[in-house]
Order: sequence, then C-alpha cells, then structure tokens
Amino acid sequence: MTVTLNIGIIGPGYIGSEFLRQVNQYQIKHGFDKLAVIAVAELDRLWLHQPTAEAPGIDLSTWKDTFANIKDKPDLNAFASHLASHQPAVLVDTTASQFVASQYPAWLKQGLHIVTPNKKAFSGDLALFKEIQSLSAQRPGEEYPMVFHESTVGAGLPVLDTLKNLVATGDKIVKIEGIFSGTLSYLFNVFSPSNGPASDAKFSDIVKDAKAKGYTEPDPRDDLNGLDVARKVTICGRLAGLDLSMENLDIENIVPEELRALKTADEFLAALPKYDEHFAKLNEEARKRNEVLRYVGVCDPNGTSSVKLMSYPTSHPFASLKGSDNIIAFTTERFVNPLIIIGAGAGDAVTAFGIFSDVLQIYGRVTYGR
Amino acid sequence: MTVTLNIGIIGPGYIGSEFLRQVNQYQIKHGFDKLAVIAVAELDRLWLHQPTAEAPGIDLSTWKDTFANIKDKPDLNAFASHLASHQPAVLVDTTASQFVASQYPAWLKQGLHIVTPNKKAFSGDLALFKEIQSLSAQRPGEEYPMVFHESTVGAGLPVLDTLKNLVATGDKIVKIEGIFSGTLSYLFNVFSPSNGPASDAKFSDIVKDAKAKGYTEPDPRDDLNGLDVARKVTICGRLAGLDLSMENLDIENIVPEELRALKTADEFLAALPKYDEHFAKLNEEARKRNEVLRYVGVCDPNGTSSVKLMSYPTSHPFASLKGSDNIIAFTTERFVNPLIIIGAGAGDAVTAFGIFSDVLQIYGRVTYGR
Ligand SMILES: NC(=O)c1ccc[n+]([C@@H]2O[C@H](COP(=O)([O-])OP(=O)(O)OC[C@H]3O[C@@H](n4cnc5c(N)ncnc54)[C@H](OP(=O)(O)O)[C@@H]3O)[C@@H](O)[C@H]2O)c1
Ligand SMILES: NC(=O)c1ccc[n+]([C@@H]2O[C@H](COP(=O)([O-])OP(=O)(O)OC[C@H]3O[C@@H](n4cnc5c(N)ncnc54)[C@H](OP(=O)(O)O)[C@@H]3O)[C@@H](O)[C@H]2O)c1
Repeated sequence: MTVTLNIGIIGPGYIGSEFLRQVNQYQIKHGFDKLAVIAVAELDRLWLHQPTAEAPGIDLSTWKDTFANIKDKPDLNAFASHLASHQPAVLVDTTASQFVASQYPAWLKQGLHIVTPNKKAFSGDLALFKEIQSLSAQRPGEEYPMVFHESTVGAGLPVLDTLKNLVATGDKIVKIEGIFSGTLSYLFNVFSPSNGPASDAKFSDIVKDAKAKGYTEPDPRDDLNGLDVARKVTICGRLAGLDLSMENLDIENIVPEELRALKTADEFLAALPKYDEHFAKLNEEARKRNEVLRYVGVCDPNGTSSVKLMSYPTSHPFASLKGSDNIIAFTTERFVNPLIIIGAGAGDAVTAFGIFSDVLQIYGRVTYGR
Repeated sequence: MTVTLNIGIIGPGYIGSEFLRQVNQYQIKHGFDKLAVIAVAELDRLWLHQPTAEAPGIDLSTWKDTFANIKDKPDLNAFASHLASHQPAVLVDTTASQFVASQYPAWLKQGLHIVTPNKKAFSGDLALFKEIQSLSAQRPGEEYPMVFHESTVGAGLPVLDTLKNLVATGDKIVKIEGIFSGTLSYLFNVFSPSNGPASDAKFSDIVKDAKAKGYTEPDPRDDLNGLDVARKVTICGRLAGLDLSMENLDIENIVPEELRALKTADEFLAALPKYDEHFAKLNEEARKRNEVLRYVGVCDPNGTSSVKLMSYPTSHPFASLKGSDNIIAFTTERFVNPLIIIGAGAGDAVTAFGIFSDVLQIYGRVTYGR
C-alpha cells in the first residue's frame, strides 16, 4: 500500500520555492501519491488543499500563480489543524520567524513532524529548545513526532546528521570548529588568501563588493557581528549535549564599536574605510607568522565556546577554503584527526536539498512496513 | 512499548569486536531491551542465544570468553533462521567473505535487514548487486528489508549516506573523486608532501616502513594494485546509478610489472628498490609543476571511471591531506564547488561507528510508531 506523506509549508520564499520545485521533480519521477503538498501559508495568505484521489496535493508546477491570487487570511491554527487531520504530515517552516518557531511545541503535540532551516527554535531560548526535544523523537525507537533541521547549519552539508550519529553511537565530542558563515568565509578568503601575499584590496572595498554581489545581508553588519555564526555554534553545542546559549558564548563582533550605532547600512559602509588600516594590520601580522585570518566558531565541551576572528597556518584546512564555502571539523574520541565537511553552506539549491533529505528521512520512517 | 531489534553477527574480528563493544556501551547507557545480540558465527563456531525476559541478548561484556569455549559447528542457515524467527532482526556481516555476501538475497527473502562493511556484494558480480537492490528498500517508503553498508567506503565517514541523499532528492552527479585508501593516502602524503620539497626518502623505504607499522596489507601489493580502491569506486558508481563493474574501470596497478609474479611479500619488498628511481622521477616532475602525487579514484557518469596515480596542485584539497586520511569530493549540479568529506577511512573505532550508525538507522525505522 502506498502511504502519502502530506506536507504543509510556511513561508515559501527563496528557499521554500526551491524546495517545492525539488518536490515537484520528485513527483514527476516517482508519482504524485508519495509526497503531497496540501497547505501553503505566508504572512498574508493561506491555501488549504483538500486531498482527493485525482489531486492528492497542490499542483506544484503552477502553485505560485494560484497562490498569488489567494485572499484567505492566514491562520496558523487552521493550517496546523488541516495538516493534523491528514496524518502522517510534516510541517516545513522556511521562514526565519521567532513567532513561527514558538509554535513548534503545540504542533508536535498535534502529532505533526517538523522540518526547517529556521535557526530560531534551536538557538534561542533554551527552555523552548528543551521543550521541543522532550516532545520529539531524540533517539531511534522513540514514538514521538520527529524534528529535523539539518539545513540550520551548513545548509545541506551533512553536519547535524553526522553530529547526531557520533553522539548516538557513544562517541565523545572533543571539539567542533568551523567556518559557519558563507559571507565571512568569502570576505576572509579574499582578504587573507592562503596562496600568495595578503590581498592589496582594502577590507571595506571587499565588503562593499560582496554586498553589491548579493553575498551579504542587506546590512553587512548583520554578518560581521557574528550573531548568525553564534546561532550555528549554539545549535551544534546543544546537539552535542551542552546547555549552550548565545549569552554564554564569547562572541567577537568585528563591526568597529563606533559604527554599531549608525542608522543605515549606507552610513556604515561610508564610515568603514576609516578602519581599513586596523584590518590590514591584523592581516599583515598573521602573514608574518605564515598564517591567514579566518572568522571561526568553536564549540568546546570542556572549555569556552566562542566565535572569533582567528588566524591559522597556511597549511591548515581552514586556510585553503574557496569562495564562500563552509568547513566544519569534528574532533572526537574516535576521530583524533578530525572528520571534516566542506562545501556550500548557503544558496537555494543546497539548502532545499538539506530540507528535502530531512523530509525523505521522515517519509522513510513513517511509511516503513505500513 | 519497547521493541527490541535483534542482532546477529558473522565474523566478529577486529571490526566486529569493536562494534560489539560499542553496542555494549549503548546498552549500559540506554538499557538492554533495545538492541540485543542473539547470534554470533565464525568460520569454526556458532552461538545461538534464546532471548528471555532476563537475558534479551548475549552478555556483551563477557562474550569473547564464552564464545571461545563454544563447540557448535557453524551453520549459516541455522544462524539466519534463528534471526528470522526473532524479527525485527539485523544481520551484521563483518567478514570479507564472498561466500557470506552471496547469501544476502536468501536472507533478505527471510525478512532480515543487513548491515556490513564487507565490500564483496556491492563491488563484485553486478547481477548479485542488482538482486540485492531489488530485494531491499532502495527508496523511502518501500516495504522491503533494508541493506546499509556505509562503512564499505571511507569507513564511518558519511560518504554513502550523502551520496544516497543527493541521488534521492534529484541532484545530478557530475563527478565523484577521492583518495579512498588509507594506505595509499599515507604512502603518497609522506612521499610527495604539499609543504616543503619532495621527500628524500625512497619509495621502497616508505612502503617498508608502512608495512612495519601495520599500515599495509600483509602483502603491500594488495594495496598498490588498486583493487581495493576500484571496489570503492565501483560501489560509489553503482549508488550513483551507473552499471559499473571493476572490469570497466581503468585501473592503474602501480606494482611494477616485473614484480607482480613474485611469490612472497618479502621477495617483492627486496626487489622494489630497483624502481625507486622511477617513482622519484614521477615525484620530481610533479614537483616542477608545483604539484604532488596522489593515488585517486574517479567516478565519472559521463566519461571513464578510473583508479590512477595522478598529480594535483599543492593548493588542491587532495594535496593537503594528512596521515592516512581519506578524502571524497562530490561535484554535482547543486554542488558546483564540490561537497568534500575528509577523515579516517580505516580503523576499528571509526569503522564500527559506521556500522553502528547503520544499525541505529534501521532501529529507528522498524520501531517508529510501534
Ligand atoms: N538563504 C540561504 O541560503 C539559507 C541557508 C540556510 C538557512 N536559511 C534559512 O532559511 C529560511 C528562509 O530563508 P529565505 O532565504 O528563503 O528567506 P525569504 O526568501 O525571506 O523567505 C522567508 C519567507 O517566510 C515568510 N514569513 C516570514 N515570517 C512569516 C510568518 N510569521 N508566517 C508566515 N510566513 C512568514 C516570508 O513571507 P513575506 O515575503 O510575506 O515576508 C517569506 O516568504 C530562513 O530561516 C533562513 O535563515 C537560508
Ligand atoms: N579494518 C578496517 O579498518 C576496515 C575498514 C573498512 C571496512 N573493513 C571491512 O570490514 C570487514 C572486517 O574486517 P576486519 O579488519 O575486522 O577483518 P578480520 O579481523 O579478519 O575479521 C574478519 C572475521 O570474519 C571471519 N570470517 C571470514 N569468513 C567467514 C565466513 N565465511 N563465515 C564466518 N566467519 C567468517 C573471520 O574468522 P576467522 O578468524 O575464523 O578467519 C574473522 O573473525 C572486512 O570486510 C573489511 O574489508 C575493514
């Protein structure tokens, strides 16, 4: 018997639309009765689809146009109830909303599985994180709904799945260390390359250029303040069993103190050149030690976890990183030389890949033997 | 209700004993009623345990002594039937036996799940591989028994799981390229380092030293002939959907032609110095191009798959590999810059980790919602 896993999505933006595109490709290849999207919600509209034999789910080749014409007021309770009455069902949250994240416990109590790239629930309030853990299957064999969020760290790279496997099989985490931000990876790979001399380019020009290319947040200070990296380090630390919070982390904000209060991104970019000498000096000092600058997050179960601008020998794997790639290194009791994962940690295709892998893992579990 | 996943193991040697040690640690932490070992087989003895409420499985803190005193003749049919009458059950094959591998179809028909680091079934006869595929769950939602063999490539590194996720979610594999052998990784990392000048050491001395340290097969020609790497490339290729066989691969055997027929490893090692100049010359030529030598397996869906001694720029991730680490790079439609995994690809702790992760994945599926 074919079992359908029903999907509801909240916030089909850049990432969510690509996820729906990938699901559509899957349906075309494997049939329309395995994965069916029966609910779509955004801030200002809601679409609930009643599954029928002919149309188990929304037509994903045309959903955007149809959705654009929908006028239904969004109501996340109605959204969740609709999914709950069509189980097995997974709720995919592709927003960055704290409010949406705070609803996970209620939805888990309704039996819904959750898959998301939204970091809020796993890096914010520790009590919310623990409640979600206690309401969801944390170990194989538990009967609770499942929560997967692979793409909250390193997008589709197999970071959290690997970490969970290490912990579940009894390995001991010695250190997790990585370059978790594509933007900061790019900035320092260009500014402080491992081959050849330190770049002549000014740090401020590299930031401006990256923003022009769309590699940074609208306000680059949202990358440079280290908070996004801190969220990812917090998520890794919690999955490693630590009661970590952003507040316990030693976070180095590399936005110069005097520029933090400036109102707009443009004012910030206009003032940044004043600090080019400061960054050039750091780069030069590292270079003299045959090292490069990298912005790194460290999760250390036996010491302080931190997010900092550090320097590494040019032969270190962090030094030879390319483009905006992420790199995450797990040093454990078993992996004395670290297990290292490298690759794109942002972008629609690879982030949606992480979400879709999670959905298929749930599909495999809920349908096995049915 | 707690569901017990019963485990039977064939060939508890170097890897298998470590797996049982890890399972024992898990039982001590999570209870003895989740995973229970109820059968152990070796070439010359067999132990079938009748599960009871007090002893769901064999006592894994003392199994070795008890097993050593067992006189029962081995009978793999009795072994499999015992497991089949205590389902859900997973058969863990930690031998390197072709004969054992050839039994998988019969065991799958009995409903047994299979987990193994044994490469034979997945890299040998294509017909056997296809039969195993058709009898086992290949996609989430299929109701067949499961076959997992993560540790056949890169030991516990998340290589095959990542490859399966890429394929299942509809990504297109452009190339899989890697250093798949810990031994050959070590030999060339020492002989052709990325930092500093090419090693002064003679290739034959490095091979002798590696053998003395226990890093090579008893006869190092079994590493240098490339067959083990070819098996791993074949496995990756098949999971990527190619009808690959060792026979279609372009395999470079770096054992000099004249030394292949020598009877013993000692004769081989005594004669190898004659070829030191040959290897030194290759190394020197690579060095002049600012490159290093690496023994690499390539799986190319649109061209020829191969196993060869190649050279890479010193800035390439393959050049900066350390010790006996493996590295595997997936270039895909989504990962234009490759997704790269690095780490130990041999050793008891990391190989058993791969096996145990597979077992827990099965445990999660068979027990979910029961
Ligand atoms: N972009 C990446 O490469 C990447 C990588 C890893 C993880 N992520 C994470 O993926 C998530 C989505 O990122 P994105 O780049 O796709 O952002 P996006 O394009 O801005 O999409 C977010 C969507 O969520 C909607 N939304 C926000 N709050 C909502 C609420 N309370 N109820 C319903 N809908 C709501 C937005 O609707 P409106 O348009 O109406 O505001 C928008 O459609 C974020 O959590 C992000 O951190 C992204
Ligand atoms: N070592 C590694 O780092 C590594 C890494 C990845 C994968 N692997 C794979 O893991 C497997 C085990 O490796 P290992 O290093 O543990 O080898 P091992 O120590 O030699 O253990 C193999 C065991 O299998 C038994 N055996 C062989 N044929 C059998 C048969 N027909 N029926 C029952 N038992 C049989 C052997 O018994 P006897 O002692 O009676 O011969 C021995 O106990 C191999 O397939 C290997 O390729 C190993």
